[in-house]
Amino acid sequence: MIIVTRVNATNAMIDRIREHVESRGARSYSVARGDRVVIGCLGDVEELLPAAVLALPGVENVTAWRTPYRLASPALAPAGGRTAVRIGDGARAVVGGAELLVVAGPCAVEGREMLRETALAVRRAGAGALRGGAFKPRTSPYTFQGLEEEGLRLLAECRRETGLPVVTEVMDPRHVEIVAEHADVLQVGARNMQNFPLLREVGRVRRPVLLKRGMSATITELLLAAEYVLAAGNPDVMLCERGIRTFETATRNTLDVAAIAVLHRETHLPVIVDPSHAAGRADLVTPLACAALAAGADGLIVEVHPRPDTARSDGEQSLSPPQFDELMRIVRPFVAAAGRRLSGSPGAPLQEGRAA
Amino acid sequence: MIIVTRVNATNAMIDRIREHVESRGARSYSVARGDRVVIGCLGDVEELLPAAVLALPGVENVTAWRTPYRLASPALAPAGGRTAVRIGDGARAVVGGAELLVVAGPCAVEGREMLRETALAVRRAGAGALRGGAFKPRTSPYTFQGLEEEGLRLLAECRRETGLPVVTEVMDPRHVEIVAEHADVLQVGARNMQNFPLLREVGRVRRPVLLKRGMSATITELLLAAEYVLAAGNPDVMLCERGIRTFETATRNTLDVAAIAVLHRETHLPVIVDPSHAAGRADLVTPLACAALAAGADGLIVEVHPRPDTARSDGEQSLSPPQFDELMRIVRPFVAAAGRRLSGSPGAPLQEGRAA
Amino acid sequence: MIIVTRVNATNAMIDRIREHVESRGARSYSVARGDRVVIGCLGDVEELLPAAVLALPGVENVTAWRTPYRLASPALAPAGGRTAVRIGDGARAVVGGAELLVVAGPCAVEGREMLRETALAVRRAGAGALRGGAFKPRTSPYTFQGLEEEGLRLLAECRRETGLPVVTEVMDPRHVEIVAEHADVLQVGARNMQNFPLLREVGRVRRPVLLKRGMSATITELLLAAEYVLAAGNPDVMLCERGIRTFETATRNTLDVAAIAVLHRETHLPVIVDPSHAAGRADLVTPLACAALAAGADGLIVEVHPRPDTARSDGEQSLSPPQFDELMRIVRPFVAAAGRRLSGSPGAPLQEGRAA
Amino acid sequence: MIIVTRVNATNAMIDRIREHVESRGARSYSVARGDRVVIGCLGDVEELLPAAVLALPGVENVTAWRTPYRLASPALAPAGGRTAVRIGDGARAVVGGAELLVVAGPCAVEGREMLRETALAVRRAGAGALRGGAFKPRTSPYTFQGLEEEGLRLLAECRRETGLPVVTEVMDPRHVEIVAEHADVLQVGARNMQNFPLLREVGRVRRPVLLKRGMSATITELLLAAEYVLAAGNPDVMLCERGIRTFETATRNTLDVAAIAVLHRETHLPVIVDPSHAAGRADLVTPLACAALAAGADGLIVEVHPRPDTARSDGEQSLSPPQFDELMRIVRPFVAAAGRRLSGSPGAPLQEGRAA
Repeated sequence: MIIVTRVNATNAMIDRIREHVESRGARSYSVARGDRVVIGCLGDVEELLPAAVLALPGVENVTAWRTPYRLASPALAPAGGRTAVRIGDGARAVVGGAELLVVAGPCAVEGREMLRETALAVRRAGAGALRGGAFKPRTSPYTFQGLEEEGLRLLAECRRETGLPVVTEVMDPRHVEIVAEHADVLQVGARNMQNFPLLREVGRVRRPVLLKRGMSATITELLLAAEYVLAAGNPDVMLCERGIRTFETATRNTLDVAAIAVLHRETHLPVIVDPSHAAGRADLVTPLACAALAAGADGLIVEVHPRPDTARSDGEQSLSPPQFDELMRIVRPFVAAAGRRLSGSPGAPLQEGRAA
Repeated sequence: MIIVTRVNATNAMIDRIREHVESRGARSYSVARGDRVVIGCLGDVEELLPAAVLALPGVENVTAWRTPYRLASPALAPAGGRTAVRIGDGARAVVGGAELLVVAGPCAVEGREMLRETALAVRRAGAGALRGGAFKPRTSPYTFQGLEEEGLRLLAECRRETGLPVVTEVMDPRHVEIVAEHADVLQVGARNMQNFPLLREVGRVRRPVLLKRGMSATITELLLAAEYVLAAGNPDVMLCERGIRTFETATRNTLDVAAIAVLHRETHLPVIVDPSHAAGRADLVTPLACAALAAGADGLIVEVHPRPDTARSDGEQSLSPPQFDELMRIVRPFVAAAGRRLSGSPGAPLQEGRAA
Repeated sequence: MIIVTRVNATNAMIDRIREHVESRGARSYSVARGDRVVIGCLGDVEELLPAAVLALPGVENVTAWRTPYRLASPALAPAGGRTAVRIGDGARAVVGGAELLVVAGPCAVEGREMLRETALAVRRAGAGALRGGAFKPRTSPYTFQGLEEEGLRLLAECRRETGLPVVTEVMDPRHVEIVAEHADVLQVGARNMQNFPLLREVGRVRRPVLLKRGMSATITELLLAAEYVLAAGNPDVMLCERGIRTFETATRNTLDVAAIAVLHRETHLPVIVDPSHAAGRADLVTPLACAALAAGADGLIVEVHPRPDTARSDGEQSLSPPQFDELMRIVRPFVAAAGRRLSGSPGAPLQEGRAA
Repeated sequence: MIIVTRVNATNAMIDRIREHVESRGARSYSVARGDRVVIGCLGDVEELLPAAVLALPGVENVTAWRTPYRLASPALAPAGGRTAVRIGDGARAVVGGAELLVVAGPCAVEGREMLRETALAVRRAGAGALRGGAFKPRTSPYTFQGLEEEGLRLLAECRRETGLPVVTEVMDPRHVEIVAEHADVLQVGARNMQNFPLLREVGRVRRPVLLKRGMSATITELLLAAEYVLAAGNPDVMLCERGIRTFETATRNTLDVAAIAVLHRETHLPVIVDPSHAAGRADLVTPLACAALAAGADGLIVEVHPRPDTARSDGEQSLSPPQFDELMRIVRPFVAAAGRRLSGSPGAPLQEGRAA
């Protein structure tokens, strides 16, 4: 049930409405909408009679939820219409609204030096955050599975040096706490989009979550997965389109560029696009990045490796630092055409003291 | 077999090489490539021995075809690397190279007035060509199948008035001649991408062909379909990405935006994108159009109807004239960001004499 | 509109009802249903007022069509509930009802001897009809396109010798007449499922049609394609499930075995399965054939070639005659378990006079 | 590396070979193959030089792995060629080989009575094991998530009464231990096929695992997921085909019946089919079950609910007990045609003492 208050509803009226709702076993969420307040009611609402609610002072109307997801629904969008997720200490980077974030870095953290080298290069080129996998989901049990906790420590160390907030994947609900200690954004991978125990666990921490769309997940399923995180208490969810599985084999996945526009209509959460996993090959990453921005993406997450041909994973789709420079150069006019500006790192050289 | 000549090969040497090839039952196609000439050999080439060809004066090297398609292959790209297709009498519009063409108009020609109204509106907004179906492929035999020949006549009449070249679909090999009489571009629809008798027939006329990708056709299959047209003698083929069929139901089809970039690597033919059929709903057409341009599309083909809610087909995905105006307004910065300029109609008011 | 008559409706009443319908511009189709008659009304039925029809003597009730297809709808099923299509002079073979037809033969007719050898082998093993392509739809213009009219003559010759009715593909509406002269069944291939001019043309001849499902066609689209043939006047349509295109690459296509069962609920037309094109590899043809029969298929169409490794097309999925013998041996218990019997050729040796 | 020993290799020789392998950091797995022994080597085998191994006494040949999975590979099939997984105390039921297991029961355990009623009904009809979800993966956080531990206790109680081994899903690595305490088979659901921490955890317990194919997982990915479980030490893995996601919407998923036959070529692990989730509607479950058996499935897992229209999940695809009786009646001739016999419960009435 969604309750919209009258223009002249007082705070006392609004409190009274929420009290009424909660005393009947529902949870209530409220957002300002111009001169009114929208109150979304969740949970066991069978005892919540619309007629009774309508009779409360200050209530203008009462409607049913139009979507199976609730907190992700446009009905509960914050003022301005869209959620902007702030990342890192001091909210160094922002995803959503006028700002557009480029996250870049290696598929996997392979060691201190390669991570540092990549971070400095992507920062210089204009990336606002660093990605890097410490726990890697790998199709085969016999391939490199990541440096695990050592990888997390290297990421945190790299953030201290470069100032770039860090995005890294968590796969196991038992690791959420430790990953949250070291990282600024917890990434839930495509294979875990419907790993519900994991979603609930990342919903309990105070770190933004980057939720990737499953390989064959519908947009509605993606939003319901986001709802698991939101309902567990974490409001900072960024959605990530990374290509869906189709019959076409020229690319690793098919980037569903329309999903960006659909999501902007169906939710207030920001949308990041991963052109690297969609393409599966380095030469297509830049055109896909441009397409994503033109379709309205709020951010990009791009794989960059200092020497792609020696990468321990995803080398074919990783850009070298000069290739990433070129991506940023080509992408900038499209950022402007989309009426956005890059968020986070100004691409300026590091200050002496900070790089120490 | 692909033959590359030496820098100093004379015309006589080149003639001699082609003679050698043709006398052994193959056909030869040659294009200039800087200081050299590339000669592609097709057909029954078993008797064409590489060693014998290599021994001919002026031959630098001989390689096997890397792709199953030949005339569509980048190996036979014209000077400049890409084919630019000229459309209409006096080549009013160009697709490919620096120019980007927007084709717009109704799904089906429903009558003189609605066609004229649409044509004038899209011309004013900046479209360079008019689309409109006279023969309509319809899933059900009981729905409107188009005005057929009457529709063709209305299109031709509208071209005379507005100066916009006309794109229309042909479905039946027996209609190719009459459609070619009235239209500037013959469209082969997605359902007919592998209608080989039709492809051969449109390959025999002197009209550019717009070949739409089949709903579940791979990129290679699309290029082999184009090869049917090219091999039949028609060099003016434009490819059209219009979305592929996937599990996602939020859109009618999934626009495979990566296909644009893949095609630009795998062929010299230009690529037009149809955001209307990909989206299946009007509110997504503009973001898909922007994404297509950012990914490198050489043109757009957009459905516009004066009153979409009364359209006899595809009303949900048709833009009204004001919506198309807005699309053009939003699209222009992306055209510029892509380093292109709009081709065809200048959007200027018609001259008195012409509109009479 | 579907009209059901009362139990005691007289022939005169029924004639009167149909007259009423047709005089208002609709076409009417009637089938007996126990003690009643069902009259399906097609075409421009806006002037057909339900109330007026209900008031006619002998009318029990009037309902709207539940499906977008009409003549293919279960509402117009013949007595017994399912259409049995009779094939060949003297209806040598039957598809549907208690009989189950196995069609076998080469992908393409490559010559007189190989066709004869295959026909005799499959007849001996229990096939009831012969398949063989004369006009071949090929993805590339540079591969073998069939023997065309010569192929048709060889098929007709082979029928005279073996008594096996002949199934062959037609791709071009201009060839329908000549193919119908030589063949017993006109096959419309997957790529032409929505080639509407072709569907209309095969709808005008007196030969059963085998309509293959398009690679990415939904079941409803298949039935609407069948409706084109039925509406053009040909009641003898057999549907063919041959696998759909999915992401899985272990097989050429994914056999949609559920489609058989869905079709048996959604139409009265018989369903044949092509395990060869679904599998794309010979070693999977037999298990897919068994699965198809167990799911209720009314027939099989299987590619058999005397020497698959030298076949000019589809060699990897063709069975050798001994492999086809084994398929028939393995399949027979499933035919029995499904409560069916094989139709057509008894597998008996040819009589002296006939084989001459 | 795969090592095949000579016919006359002694046990001492074989021990020596394995010692050689393991001392170089690899793990070795051996299976008898007629008169020879096959030794599969896994892990860090770079130091394992083929020439050195070939020189060892008793070695016949050394080959590289042909597949990315190892323990699941046919190269390591047990004697007889296929793994038969024994289920329940005293190995009440067997999956694989000549025996074919039908698992049946509700989607979710909703309470003691409904579970007992279902178990008795499916046992009577011939099912050999009971399914029932205690922890339910649900697309929305707001729908019934299962009775959790209480559900596990009810399942164990029901097994004691009926003698049917129990199959139930585990979603969280932290629950593996408690689920293994109560259940006979741990099911890993389609959404968790690539939940690698979970796969490793179920690989560490002594309970057979039923691993469902992900909605868009290739067959190779399914086998690599199985490899995670095998490599962690659990040899008892059953694979489950349950339909893949495609464009077709007439069914919930598309049953990939060819996957059964492909898996029988690519692995020695048994294959169970879930026709309920493939169909998504009760009326298609029986034909899909028949098709699966005809294609070679080693078992079925079917949803049965005493009153499907009141089920708290998956009611549309659940059979009522009489419908399940009919499924078993229709399926039996196909079991026989496939040369199999039903495993587990004889369908006999319970003995007095046991049912008390």
